[in-house]
Amino acid sequence: MKTVVERNLKNFLEDGRENELAEMLASMHPADIAEILNPLDMEDTIKVIALMEVEHASDVLVEMSESSRDQVAAEMPLEKLTELVAEMDSDDAADIVAELPDDEANKVLAAIEQKDAEGVRRLMMYDEETAGGLMQVEMISAKEDETVTHLVERIREIDDGRDVYFIFIVDNANVLRGQVNMRQLLLAWPDQMMKDLMTFPSLVVRVDEDQEAVAQKFQKYDVQSAPVIDDQGHLLGRITFDDIMDVVHEEMDQDFYRMAGSSEEEVYSSGPAKIATLRMPWLLFNLGGGFITSAILSYFEVAFTNILILVPFVPMVMGLSGAVGSQSATITVRGLAMGRIAEGKVWPNVLREIRISTIIAFSLGIIIALGSGFLHSAARLGLAVGISIVTAIIVSTILGAVIPLLFKALKIDPALASGPVVTSTNDVVSLIIYMGMGTAILSM
Amino acid sequence: MKTVVERNLKNFLEDGRENELAEMLASMHPADIAEILNPLDMEDTIKVIALMEVEHASDVLVEMSESSRDQVAAEMPLEKLTELVAEMDSDDAADIVAELPDDEANKVLAAIEQKDAEGVRRLMMYDEETAGGLMQVEMISAKEDETVTHLVERIREIDDGRDVYFIFIVDNANVLRGQVNMRQLLLAWPDQMMKDLMTFPSLVVRVDEDQEAVAQKFQKYDVQSAPVIDDQGHLLGRITFDDIMDVVHEEMDQDFYRMAGSSEEEVYSSGPAKIATLRMPWLLFNLGGGFITSAILSYFEVAFTNILILVPFVPMVMGLSGAVGSQSATITVRGLAMGRIAEGKVWPNVLREIRISTIIAFSLGIIIALGSGFLHSAARLGLAVGISIVTAIIVSTILGAVIPLLFKALKIDPALASGPVVTSTNDVVSLIIYMGMGTAILSM
Repeated sequence: MKTVVERNLKNFLEDGRENELAEMLASMHPADIAEILNPLDMEDTIKVIALMEVEHASDVLVEMSESSRDQVAAEMPLEKLTELVAEMDSDDAADIVAELPDDEANKVLAAIEQKDAEGVRRLMMYDEETAGGLMQVEMISAKEDETVTHLVERIREIDDGRDVYFIFIVDNANVLRGQVNMRQLLLAWPDQMMKDLMTFPSLVVRVDEDQEAVAQKFQKYDVQSAPVIDDQGHLLGRITFDDIMDVVHEEMDQDFYRMAGSSEEEVYSSGPAKIATLRMPWLLFNLGGGFITSAILSYFEVAFTNILILVPFVPMVMGLSGAVGSQSATITVRGLAMGRIAEGKVWPNVLREIRISTIIAFSLGIIIALGSGFLHSAARLGLAVGISIVTAIIVSTILGAVIPLLFKALKIDPALASGPVVTSTNDVVSLIIYMGMGTAILSM
Repeated sequence: MKTVVERNLKNFLEDGRENELAEMLASMHPADIAEILNPLDMEDTIKVIALMEVEHASDVLVEMSESSRDQVAAEMPLEKLTELVAEMDSDDAADIVAELPDDEANKVLAAIEQKDAEGVRRLMMYDEETAGGLMQVEMISAKEDETVTHLVERIREIDDGRDVYFIFIVDNANVLRGQVNMRQLLLAWPDQMMKDLMTFPSLVVRVDEDQEAVAQKFQKYDVQSAPVIDDQGHLLGRITFDDIMDVVHEEMDQDFYRMAGSSEEEVYSSGPAKIATLRMPWLLFNLGGGFITSAILSYFEVAFTNILILVPFVPMVMGLSGAVGSQSATITVRGLAMGRIAEGKVWPNVLREIRISTIIAFSLGIIIALGSGFLHSAARLGLAVGISIVTAIIVSTILGAVIPLLFKALKIDPALASGPVVTSTNDVVSLIIYMGMGTAILSM
């Protein structure tokens, strides 16, 4: 089914066979439709969305990629958009409305039900990267003295088809007291009260917690849903596992792009000039390092005429030092991100990296000393290249292991460190060590 | 509470205050205890586990890191281990038993209940990286004509405290027909039959599917649990969202370590010599590239005496080409991993990278031409360096964007490409371009 629609969607629209298309779409999962719409142009997407039942169309819009979704929302007639937003969970609605110009956002919110609009407005106030930015206000809560029968009747009336994981139990001041899961509710006697069934949640999230910390706790405690509270313990909303999976993906992407000296913005930017600008800072850092290394090399060329024989090995020294340093940096950055390197326990990691790199440095150093010695039939050259490369590699490792920790201490994202900073610092330091030690040994 | 136990655990054990410790542990979450035990030595860990109720201790063992857990399982008295394994879900039990020597594994399986042992044995047969390796056999299934009352009574009897997300509905031949969620069950009338309630799952997983593909589908369809079937549609088990979160983490780690030329094994290896061996292949590739570049530089030094002035810019050319190439490679590798670069739609990506890098190359080229020209007061040098660096950068981008696609076509993990292969190929190619073009321009 999917392939038929995917391949022929444009034909269906051009041939005016909208009814046929609408029928096919109706039986498809919103996530599958979203996947087909993501790469389409705005006009076609809006046409297709108009063919679907409001509820289904609303789900499709939520499932679309952030960039496509925001574009479609901006282009769509405001009336239609309001219809779709009214069907959404508060968190999805807030994400979309927050991207609209202020006057349009106000119009949309004014047109949807008072209670819903209030929830959306409240969510729009929280920082996107915190628990408040992830949570939704839709959830089922109950008082401690509510009976099972009464609660079940309430759930029947809500009838919104939404997944229920836990019923959150609050006192009269809306302070979280516990939770009851669906299995307990199913097996309980009709007149049992919530306070007899409830247990305390293994995870309670505070509204201002960073989303990455929240994701780590979800993973640690294996929960599918957690209540969100404020400083006074009032129940504000809930976060579910699917929000967490999105966070994990987002953070993962961010780290990858940072390591390559770009950002996740790049994926959503279409113009090469814009992308080039995003990648440039990293390269300008490299460029600065390049001018420094060229000045160093020029100096040595001018000052010492007998060191020309060292020069061919410069790229090798810099390449190897760079590779070893970036391995240490990557391992350290990952260790910090995954919590494997605990706060205050950083020295064992640095020492471990030094031990590892000493082994690596001597293994490579011997091969290089023999290789360069034989290649140029000069034992002294081999010695000079070998010793200086061993030193350069060990120093590069230390830099690679220490710079991310330094970044962390300075509250800069350590992932930035495994990029140009370590590379350029490494280049300059290893070149000075290599040329300096090499020249000294050759002049002995 | 946690900090008290964490800080004083050794003291408690040394002072013989086991009862006090046991009491404190009893009120803690298994994941929190596991976090404290992970870095402890085997002897203390086994002592602490012995202080806990069997069910609690079993949960703690499951929550521990893979390496600590396998070590503890190997060291623990076999009788105790059997007790703990008997309490576990089939998938966790299979993971632990699979790591034991054959005779011990058989003893453990012989001692636990016949039905449980069968499930564990069956799971141990599946490839660890497939749906079969993730699923558990514990789940609740029902026939199409079972009534709500009857099913609820059965659930009451099972009483294992396990989370239930869906009841899977099968026909008489155990072929999956649909599912019923807990909310439906709670709101249904006592004599309704499953076939009147059931819907078809939005995600059904086949037992031999790769775990990464399964994780992507969980994310796409936002399900918290999915049934696993064989080729004939028979229901074999279920996968839950917490298994998926573990997969996402594992795959993410793998990609990071591959990009640094190491492997996730590194985290679990304690010896520096072993880790050095894991990192070495990547470096040997670099080393090979280094010998080639040194040969090229030696050749140019000997053949053309007037090119010494070009040499100081060699590190800059190689560094910038390498950085630009690795940006293209990273973006391409991520695009492939996230499904953003669809099969058969690779050219738009390559063309996009070329357009981006052309902008970058000319921007950097002009800065470098001016910089090197002024630095050495030689316009011709500036021209030579500028033109050849522009060419080298554009070629490096093409290599960076194409090599991962080539790897993908050859069924090699594209993540490997953004490492040493792209770097070393880049080094050699950009050096030849730079020295070749530079020499030609200077000799004109």
